Amino acid sequence: MRSLLLKVLLPLLLVANAAFAADPLPSWNEGPAKQEIISFVEKVTKESSPVFVPPAERIATFDNDGTLWSEQPLPVQLYFALDRVKALAPQHPEWKTKEPFASLLKGDMKTAFAGGDHALLELMMATHAGMTTTAFERIVKDWLATAQHPKFKRPYTDLAYQPMIELLAFLRANGFKTFIVSGGGVEFMRAFAEQVYGIPPEQIVGSTGKQKFELRDGGPALVKLPAVDFIDDKEGKPVSIQKFIGRRPIAAFGNSDGDLEMLQWTCSGTGLRFCLYVHHTDAEREWAYDRQSHIGRLDKGLDEAQAKNWMVVDMKQDWKNVFAFDEVSK
Amino acid sequence: MRSLLLKVLLPLLLVANAAFAADPLPSWNEGPAKQEIISFVEKVTKESSPVFVPPAERIATFDNDGTLWSEQPLPVQLYFALDRVKALAPQHPEWKTKEPFASLLKGDMKTAFAGGDHALLELMMATHAGMTTTAFERIVKDWLATAQHPKFKRPYTDLAYQPMIELLAFLRANGFKTFIVSGGGVEFMRAFAEQVYGIPPEQIVGSTGKQKFELRDGGPALVKLPAVDFIDDKEGKPVSIQKFIGRRPIAAFGNSDGDLEMLQWTCSGTGLRFCLYVHHTDAEREWAYDRQSHIGRLDKGLDEAQAKNWMVVDMKQDWKNVFAFDEVSK
Repeated sequence: MRSLLLKVLLPLLLVANAAFAADPLPSWNEGPAKQEIISFVEKVTKESSPVFVPPAERIATFDNDGTLWSEQPLPVQLYFALDRVKALAPQHPEWKTKEPFASLLKGDMKTAFAGGDHALLELMMATHAGMTTTAFERIVKDWLATAQHPKFKRPYTDLAYQPMIELLAFLRANGFKTFIVSGGGVEFMRAFAEQVYGIPPEQIVGSTGKQKFELRDGGPALVKLPAVDFIDDKEGKPVSIQKFIGRRPIAAFGNSDGDLEMLQWTCSGTGLRFCLYVHHTDAEREWAYDRQSHIGRLDKGLDEAQAKNWMVVDMKQDWKNVFAFDEVSK
Repeated sequence: MRSLLLKVLLPLLLVANAAFAADPLPSWNEGPAKQEIISFVEKVTKESSPVFVPPAERIATFDNDGTLWSEQPLPVQLYFALDRVKALAPQHPEWKTKEPFASLLKGDMKTAFAGGDHALLELMMATHAGMTTTAFERIVKDWLATAQHPKFKRPYTDLAYQPMIELLAFLRANGFKTFIVSGGGVEFMRAFAEQVYGIPPEQIVGSTGKQKFELRDGGPALVKLPAVDFIDDKEGKPVSIQKFIGRRPIAAFGNSDGDLEMLQWTCSGTGLRFCLYVHHTDAEREWAYDRQSHIGRLDKGLDEAQAKNWMVVDMKQDWKNVFAFDEVSK
């Protein structure tokens, strides 16, 4: 009898105990942020709950830069564009005297971006257009496989936030469909989001350039044109959510004023809703910035989050690990 | 022993037999179309197959008008727009003298559409814009619940093709993700596609109007503006597939020259691909039209299908039932 207990019942009990104790969000410290996330998910997924939401309506949208991965000192896509300028410079002798390229090639970022949005647009067009979508995907993937973040000296995809990756998986395990809704270029994000976040291409909404269908000798091709189609930021986010997803999300996650309208749209729906801002408060492990930052400014959003009782995650307090490599190095 | 056989084994055998014999496409007559569909699905889903496709890449795109439901004598959305003109006329006294409204209100379709695409655009703008997306959805759903097809005297949603509904379900049962990619308005289609075809809003791609995000007293709203954003037809279809889905489909289904570029894009990818045209050959149960039709013309597409060996479904020969009510009335 004793032997039976040890051989059969004990392992069963251990397994049951492990399953019970399994923490879906191990990189989150115990506290209100973690509690409220878990409580929200329990409430909307329990069929007997007064705020139950059927699986088909469990739409959650996430900003990308600064919400799912780091956006400092510059957004990753900008580093990609800068490297493309260097790679393409030999084919563009005119860039030696044409801004913003001339300054960029000298490493003078300040002068390069004195031209503001226009300079940035020039840069994006020159480096993201004039090729097929297939060729562009290849270039982004090759770049991500070799380029390194200037501070961390690691691949950019290592800068994905471990707590948010766990949150995405936790939501999906509870029947949510997770989408990215970001100002970043949609085809840039699609090159890594499935592998890094588990989000497939058809669930990624972002800024788009115009494209053209062409019948070429080698078969049909889609060519990226040097013209903006849609900027998926601020009031553009609810518009693109409606256009691409066609349902109002029940949960939305952002980190800047660029996400404010997405959170407003999400949390003004009927029933239980969940809106969350990631607040960058950790100068040691990541960066600390909010109201004064040029990149990822969180000012109006912080006020509205307080007024509307949205969750504001304090990265320093609430996150046990920021990156997967934090965990490894412990 | 005999009793045991009867009570336990016989029912088991009957169930097993029923499962084995279950036909996934009962509204399709036995023949090459049905065979090739089933053979394609078997080949791409069998892991040991040399042309196996992982589930995430099993994307299938369907045109709507004329492919999933009838588009004769006029596309359904046009009947909706005409009924809206009648409903809104009291608030628009100027329509009594303004084309195309004046002729429409007199029932003179020929004069109304003498203005061609411009007249059609005027009509769509006047009846589809100037309201919130929520209000529009309500109006479409109310209309679909009461309006009747002029020939069949049934709700328009009864005009969905039973063989295609079975095909959609068969593909999904085999791990495919099914999308609509249609020239129809995306918000018009979303109002019924989930219920009729089992396709959720986020898997519907269509023509779009511009929208605006507004903070109103009652909370944030999305307002439909009287301006075209994108026409999802012809060369627009591969462009919108790339923009919304971000992967090339492995199977595509259409019925007109407006679908040709989608089929070209789909079937020029690597690996096994499946392209299918629904050919309207059944004047008795539905309509017979192709190269000369003003609506849903299939001319270049028919030539290319023959040249490239795409499947052309002969509705009269290949479909046992066209509509679900055909089955009922037998």
